[in-house]
Amino acid sequence: MRIKLEHGAGGEIMEELIRDVILRNLTLTSAGGIGLDALDDGASIPFGDRHLVFTIDGHTVRPLFFPGGDIGRLAISGTVNDLSVMGAKPLALANAMIIGEGFEGENFERILKSMDETAREVPVSIITGDTKVVEDKIGIFVITAGIGIAERPVSDAGALVGDAVLVSGTLGDHGIAIMSHREGIAFETELKSDVAPIWDVVNAVAGAIGWENIHAMKDPTRGGLSNALNEMANKANVGILVKESEIPIKPEVKAASDMLGISPYDVANEGKVVMIVPKEYAEDALKAMRRTKHGKDAAIIGEVMEKYRGKVILETGIGGKRFLEPPLGDPVPRVC
Amino acid sequence: MRIKLEHGAGGEIMEELIRDVILRNLTLTSAGGIGLDALDDGASIPFGDRHLVFTIDGHTVRPLFFPGGDIGRLAISGTVNDLSVMGAKPLALANAMIIGEGFEGENFERILKSMDETAREVPVSIITGDTKVVEDKIGIFVITAGIGIAERPVSDAGALVGDAVLVSGTLGDHGIAIMSHREGIAFETELKSDVAPIWDVVNAVAGAIGWENIHAMKDPTRGGLSNALNEMANKANVGILVKESEIPIKPEVKAASDMLGISPYDVANEGKVVMIVPKEYAEDALKAMRRTKHGKDAAIIGEVMEKYRGKVILETGIGGKRFLEPPLGDPVPRVC
Repeated sequence: MRIKLEHGAGGEIMEELIRDVILRNLTLTSAGGIGLDALDDGASIPFGDRHLVFTIDGHTVRPLFFPGGDIGRLAISGTVNDLSVMGAKPLALANAMIIGEGFEGENFERILKSMDETAREVPVSIITGDTKVVEDKIGIFVITAGIGIAERPVSDAGALVGDAVLVSGTLGDHGIAIMSHREGIAFETELKSDVAPIWDVVNAVAGAIGWENIHAMKDPTRGGLSNALNEMANKANVGILVKESEIPIKPEVKAASDMLGISPYDVANEGKVVMIVPKEYAEDALKAMRRTKHGKDAAIIGEVMEKYRGKVILETGIGGKRFLEPPLGDPVPRVC
Repeated sequence: MRIKLEHGAGGEIMEELIRDVILRNLTLTSAGGIGLDALDDGASIPFGDRHLVFTIDGHTVRPLFFPGGDIGRLAISGTVNDLSVMGAKPLALANAMIIGEGFEGENFERILKSMDETAREVPVSIITGDTKVVEDKIGIFVITAGIGIAERPVSDAGALVGDAVLVSGTLGDHGIAIMSHREGIAFETELKSDVAPIWDVVNAVAGAIGWENIHAMKDPTRGGLSNALNEMANKANVGILVKESEIPIKPEVKAASDMLGISPYDVANEGKVVMIVPKEYAEDALKAMRRTKHGKDAAIIGEVMEKYRGKVILETGIGGKRFLEPPLGDPVPRVC
């Protein structure tokens, strides 16, 4: 077996690698809370009457600078969002950079400034780091880890029959913007990545309805909405029904996806949360999201049901229904 | 300015990059304890009556498998040791891997098994992770972050005049083993890296003399003993005198260093600690170290003095004295 690009692309092929190779070889994978084998956005450790949440992500996106963001903003947002969707207030970040020899110092500073700006939006401090330089002409990889504190960690496995499914805004922006930029597709309205830290969105909902009423959350990055919903349905052993007419998609993202032949449901988002809450709290959660900077286009897109356990059903605009399958991998390579 | 290999090699050139570029562009760098600007082995966060310690390191060593270890063992040891020298019991690790397309699955599993074995030695769990695959033929980079708990974090800046300086074993083994292996230098006694987790060594000393009596600790990785001692002298504004006759060096390491023209004081160690304690506790600390698996060759190598503030003096075998300068960078590229 040789490692292929698909092994790192989110989706089913990556999950196979993690289950069959990584988890089979690692034997100490928990510190008393949510561990590696949960395959969640992060892990948790009980600590006094609270929980530490711990997460790490390598960022290898190409190009380094793209419409709406750059690898620095992506690295900070990615880690803050993994903490946020575990229900944890970001406490501190660590930043490891692996740089290719000859990398332009100006670009390096641009990336650092962007990291700083993004961290200040949250706000969260970058308290430790590491720098390595290699001969390989890789440009730069930015690996960020984060610690957060949760009163009550939120897993991605807690959906209950009858719950409502929300998203905090338009879907597909990041993946489609990256791919359109690479392919040179231009529209009158510029396609932009949604990359942003969304602690404010999650925290606003928790303030409105309480952490105990956020049953499940997930960061729909690699593999997009399709992958996130399928994981949530599978882990909770419930069916999830979403309505195409309710899923917010920008017209320019729709147009570009059609041209590229890529579904906006299958690509990474970098500033969104998929949240599952009891139906009676759905409107309050929605209002709370919409009051935040990154949640203005939030929507209730579906519900959790007993039928089709482990599956996601998409009700199309014309009233038909089909399975929304998890992608084998995100169709956009090096998307994050 | 373009990034050069030396910018990631430990030593003075790397410190310049960190001070002049990284720290100038990052403005939120502390969470109330030891922060990024301390340039210590990790950071700390006050938490109740204890302290969280947080650290991250990217590992890019070549070759991936070397006498005495591999990149997996290095990644776990590196992070465990950074926590240990901050006085923190390792609580949990995070593991991000960036893999080059086409990387051999068997080697991937070998690395995972080695990480697992090393983590079990401590023991510490790997509770969260990330996998990315890139087209660049990089082999594999392993980036590990760690959280630990300290009753009382130990910085590398606390040396006091009159203190004794200890090392937990022979110096130069890792760097010289890597370089000899690359150059094909062979001896009857095989040169081996010292890569190992040393929480047991640090914890044994703390048990014997108390955390409050460990004034300063450092992990002499990139830039080796020279860099570690110079940082400790500089940060505490004291002089450090070490005696060449007391510094433990294996004969085969000495022989190989002579052939390679590289000082064993300037290269990375991956299973050692440099510790500074009050003189009256030095013998107890030494005995505690020597009782541990990785501390058998521990030695008291010198003392902290008022003269030559910020400098390190090496007393040579024949009674002469010279400055032990910090290297511009570790003379072995891709050493860790």
